[in-house]
Amino acid sequence: MNLLYALDLLGTAAFAASGAWAGIRRDMDLFGVLMLGLVTATGGGTLRDLFLGDTPPFIFKDETYLYLSIAVSLAIFLFHRHLEFLHHPLLYFDAVGLGTFVVIGTGKALAFKMGFVGSVMMGVMTATAGGMIRDVLSTHVPLVLQKEVYASACIAGAALLFLLDRTSFPRTWSLLAAAMTVIVVRLFAIRYNWSLPRAGGGGRST
Amino acid sequence: MNLLYALDLLGTAAFAASGAWAGIRRDMDLFGVLMLGLVTATGGGTLRDLFLGDTPPFIFKDETYLYLSIAVSLAIFLFHRHLEFLHHPLLYFDAVGLGTFVVIGTGKALAFKMGFVGSVMMGVMTATAGGMIRDVLSTHVPLVLQKEVYASACIAGAALLFLLDRTSFPRTWSLLAAAMTVIVVRLFAIRYNWSLPRAGGGGRST
Amino acid sequence: MNLLYALDLLGTAAFAASGAWAGIRRDMDLFGVLMLGLVTATGGGTLRDLFLGDTPPFIFKDETYLYLSIAVSLAIFLFHRHLEFLHHPLLYFDAVGLGTFVVIGTGKALAFKMGFVGSVMMGVMTATAGGMIRDVLSTHVPLVLQKEVYASACIAGAALLFLLDRTSFPRTWSLLAAAMTVIVVRLFAIRYNWSLPRAGGGGRST
Repeated sequence: MNLLYALDLLGTAAFAASGAWAGIRRDMDLFGVLMLGLVTATGGGTLRDLFLGDTPPFIFKDETYLYLSIAVSLAIFLFHRHLEFLHHPLLYFDAVGLGTFVVIGTGKALAFKMGFVGSVMMGVMTATAGGMIRDVLSTHVPLVLQKEVYASACIAGAALLFLLDRTSFPRTWSLLAAAMTVIVVRLFAIRYNWSLPRAGGGGRST
Repeated sequence: MNLLYALDLLGTAAFAASGAWAGIRRDMDLFGVLMLGLVTATGGGTLRDLFLGDTPPFIFKDETYLYLSIAVSLAIFLFHRHLEFLHHPLLYFDAVGLGTFVVIGTGKALAFKMGFVGSVMMGVMTATAGGMIRDVLSTHVPLVLQKEVYASACIAGAALLFLLDRTSFPRTWSLLAAAMTVIVVRLFAIRYNWSLPRAGGGGRST
Repeated sequence: MNLLYALDLLGTAAFAASGAWAGIRRDMDLFGVLMLGLVTATGGGTLRDLFLGDTPPFIFKDETYLYLSIAVSLAIFLFHRHLEFLHHPLLYFDAVGLGTFVVIGTGKALAFKMGFVGSVMMGVMTATAGGMIRDVLSTHVPLVLQKEVYASACIAGAALLFLLDRTSFPRTWSLLAAAMTVIVVRLFAIRYNWSLPRAGGGGRST
């Protein structure tokens, strides 16, 4: 499935760029920037593979992901002043990566015969754990735990894929529908500044 | 062994509640609160299974743990103002969970033929790693590294179980004795405010 | 290969000492200090083994590493005021440990038939991940991401070992050359205060 692989690489590049930028903002050195880019781009899928017992993780079976992440992070390190114009489009590539990572992770969990919650967790983990490790390494509370409909978009797409997999719906269309769900929810959340409720909020009825 | 399973679920619920409350105190959104509850309740056993190579981890083989953790965290998120009265009893449920998790973790390590330090580590990890991940995700130095006789109670119980396993003592009684050791030491520590020495302390004789 | 094992234990002791000292500086209790020493000394190799799917990790197959790390950390906890004179020599033992851990990690990756980037990553991870976990547990941004030619020395040695392994160069000499590369680069970096460029720095030409 070549389209999925292409989208996977696009998402990897977008995630690596966001990680490298985070490293630059925190004044890390070259190694720190490369490492943060690498971890953000590949950490989620790697953790998923450790959970599934599929070792060594995918990045060591096809080193394309590693070379791509390092090359993108290096480019950001060297040329970040000239790449500011990428900041806004990156949000969209990031959304595409999010959708792709969710369907790849959930799809792999289905192949490993995991249950509903487990499959959804694997999809969400594939898409969000890299960013969480990035935040922990820079001693920030992971963004995904605090704001925006980011993980929720992933949960929606992963749950949809699990359910469609139980039907006779063609696989390709299931993947596409699930990925589009993630991407569309994410883009709406960016556009309209959606956020999840907090427990401390006033307007909450119990 | 149905009693052990029941205690395991009770401990899981208590740990999930403590994790969810930590998420609320740090003003996380709904996803953050659910995630912190889930990680606190199941992170220790999951990490243990990754170390033992027993993948996928137990939570994916019996999703009861996942549903229970999510349900408890959701209840805390929605009704935390009305559940303040649970704060004190939670300390006791937490102690029961600690004892149960230690004997389950150490018992599993024994089944995998691990050595003394390894078995104790697996017991302590099962009981404390979830809370450590909770603290790292909220960028706090893990509580267990700083204060109270928390890990020490686990070490005592795990070591006892390892030693009893070398004797002809009946298994059920070994488990019970080890779990009770953890629980009693922990409750005494709460009651009398015990703490471990620090290197910086004055009264230490070398 | 008895020399490699001896150097491995020396490195383990040096890493445990640095971890225990970090715990003391952050005013942790006895358990925290032992845990930080243990994690710093054995975390890198443990993570490498999880990635390679070689479970349980090496520390559970030969508990010498665990006993040594705990004993060293305990000694630092008890006698740290009398051991200040060790601070400077520790830097050199640490460098020896770095070189040894890199060749052990890269060598193991080669035995698992990993590719170039994967093998280098396993070498660097073996040598640096323990310190990163130590820093994350004390809520510091990992030192290795911020300053000094620490990881770079590891990368150089690991890459050299991978390349020499492709030639007919005798194994023992390859290991020695790679370890010496790490140690020498590291010692020069300490001596001359080398550091990697930062993206924010002025003198960078793109």
